[in-house]
Amino acid sequence: MTHTIAVIPGDGIGTEVVPEGLRSVRRAAELFGIDLSFQEFDFASAAYWQQHGRMLPEDWFEVLQGFDAIYFGAVGWPDVVPDHVSLWESLLQFRRRFDQYVNLRPVRLLPGVPAPLAGRAPGDIDFLVVRENTEGEYSSIGGRIFEGTEREAVVQETVMTRTGTDRIVRFAFEQAQRRGNHLTSATKSNGISHTMPYWDERVAALGAEYPDVRVDKYHIDILTANFVLHPDWFDVVVASNLFGDILSDLGPACTGTIGVAPSGNINPTGAFPSLFEPVHGSAPDIAGRGIANPIGQIWAGAMMLDHLGHADASAAIVDAFERVLAEGTVRTPDLGGTATCSDLGQAVAEAIKAS
Amino acid sequence: MTHTIAVIPGDGIGTEVVPEGLRSVRRAAELFGIDLSFQEFDFASAAYWQQHGRMLPEDWFEVLQGFDAIYFGAVGWPDVVPDHVSLWESLLQFRRRFDQYVNLRPVRLLPGVPAPLAGRAPGDIDFLVVRENTEGEYSSIGGRIFEGTEREAVVQETVMTRTGTDRIVRFAFEQAQRRGNHLTSATKSNGISHTMPYWDERVAALGAEYPDVRVDKYHIDILTANFVLHPDWFDVVVASNLFGDILSDLGPACTGTIGVAPSGNINPTGAFPSLFEPVHGSAPDIAGRGIANPIGQIWAGAMMLDHLGHADASAAIVDAFERVLAEGTVRTPDLGGTATCSDLGQAVAEAIKAS
Ligand SMILES: CC(C)[C@H](C(=O)O)[C@@H](O)C(=O)O
Ligand SMILES: CC(C)[C@H](C(=O)O)[C@@H](O)C(=O)O
Repeated sequence: MTHTIAVIPGDGIGTEVVPEGLRSVRRAAELFGIDLSFQEFDFASAAYWQQHGRMLPEDWFEVLQGFDAIYFGAVGWPDVVPDHVSLWESLLQFRRRFDQYVNLRPVRLLPGVPAPLAGRAPGDIDFLVVRENTEGEYSSIGGRIFEGTEREAVVQETVMTRTGTDRIVRFAFEQAQRRGNHLTSATKSNGISHTMPYWDERVAALGAEYPDVRVDKYHIDILTANFVLHPDWFDVVVASNLFGDILSDLGPACTGTIGVAPSGNINPTGAFPSLFEPVHGSAPDIAGRGIANPIGQIWAGAMMLDHLGHADASAAIVDAFERVLAEGTVRTPDLGGTATCSDLGQAVAEAIKAS
Repeated sequence: MTHTIAVIPGDGIGTEVVPEGLRSVRRAAELFGIDLSFQEFDFASAAYWQQHGRMLPEDWFEVLQGFDAIYFGAVGWPDVVPDHVSLWESLLQFRRRFDQYVNLRPVRLLPGVPAPLAGRAPGDIDFLVVRENTEGEYSSIGGRIFEGTEREAVVQETVMTRTGTDRIVRFAFEQAQRRGNHLTSATKSNGISHTMPYWDERVAALGAEYPDVRVDKYHIDILTANFVLHPDWFDVVVASNLFGDILSDLGPACTGTIGVAPSGNINPTGAFPSLFEPVHGSAPDIAGRGIANPIGQIWAGAMMLDHLGHADASAAIVDAFERVLAEGTVRTPDLGGTATCSDLGQAVAEAIKAS
């Protein structure tokens, strides 16, 4: 059986880290006898926009829907196209139209990565952010009135549905059961008076079906504080689209760099392809210099193999980058070294072992 | 001239830290010859709710509007009244009806406070969060449809006006001019497609009037990461209501504890009283044990005196708690000690000097 994978490097460092991610994925596939077929696409990039005046071809949905997975780099080049246009016409469309309603973002303090939190060692920080990925604060509904005058106002609607809320909360409870039976819910029901009390209500209602799982809830403000002060308090953290976005950048920052963090945009039904990408963006400030950290993209590749049913190959990649980071001889600048993106990508691929 | 101050302790540790804050405010007033008159109110508390079925008396606006300032503890006791009810019927009403559109939240790594970030020393972290305090994500507009069914959905409207946006952004630019001429704007214009691009637009438009101020902008996700990784990058940070809420808990956490952080809810026109409170809440988990850190409430008292025109008395209080914290002999549990709230409150009050 061949797994078909659509590869979309995108913009900026996306185009630098994707080849390194593919290097590890290919190497693991070879060692574990997995048959992968890749097709690369140039859309979802500023270059495509410049040529076509749009981010995606008209038939993108038909073109991509038959793939088993999408391996994605990063999108965004604000000098050419405003971020809200480029993202809403690419990544955010994929998440929504392919109903990738789970965004899985593991956070782990890795050996060899300089830890910014005093006194924390690998093992102390190990949790999973489960982010709602299709609705909530990212609704795209809204508009402007009295444009250009002193009375100007803009509105934006947050929308949470029972379907959308329950399925992500259930998914998080099930993850909690596979880990430490402990779920933390991110809320802001004291200030955001309609959507967030509803979120709390659904977490409480579904919690009754998972009596073995201990449930905590924190308002997002103090929750971010606790990520810094008590990162060891967390196991599975479930959050709305915006809160999950914030927590899954902050979490990796607490482990030293967001350059290592992966993101799995999952459609658990399998009706459409899931998408795997690093948490970081296109990083215009360091793009073109070959110094981006490829670990986030490599780890995303490992998540993709796991999703495709190859837990062993996935684990071999994770094991490889953990060993390379722990050795510490090949480190990109964000890890305190001088290695290039490609140096680190090669070191990891070579470290992958068959057993 | 007498300054009239309404004192509202509220719930939980609010009732424990307010007397300690008052102790320092009174002592400074005595030493600097300032005439203060205090009136305490029991509303805006769960106890008041239990007795009256509401958080505030019907005439609260008339009762409070003539005061020169409000000295506030903390509200919230979810076992008795849901947080969104207690907050929307008290603190959030004050902010809105008294048009306290600026929320000023200084963040400083203080000597003697254990720093959670490796290798950071006092002086490395010193910035000011300027939070919009009346509109934005805290709109209270929204509702629910298909209640109790599978089709159930909730919506919540974020509203930003030109008036509301421009005045907070201007205020932040002016603060930047008094400090390091550097302003950071918190946005999320790549994902939140109507309100946040508007926010960016206004920051850019007003920036043209402050050419001496360097302006950075970060999406809220990476901004929280940078608070942990590069807290020294920030001087004045301007943010919407929700983003400011998050950043002003996360910032103090990066300095060791949110127990020391103050919050000034300012009406710059003086048409209505401004309100001074700690950033922390009522903390049901530690309430009643006398172990809360009173520094946030004391620092809020110093901000209040400054606002009332007594910069010298304000500075004397700040100087006093900085010396007491630096000495480190009287420390509450969150600072790694065993002192009570009252021990620390007394130590600070006694340390205040007239010159
Ligand atoms: C209690 C809550 C409604 C409030 C807020 O969100 O504004 C608090 O967190 C704060 O920061 O003052
Ligand atoms: C690029 C942006 C729209 C996106 C998001 O906000 O979801 C990114 O920050 C992420 O976390 O994947």
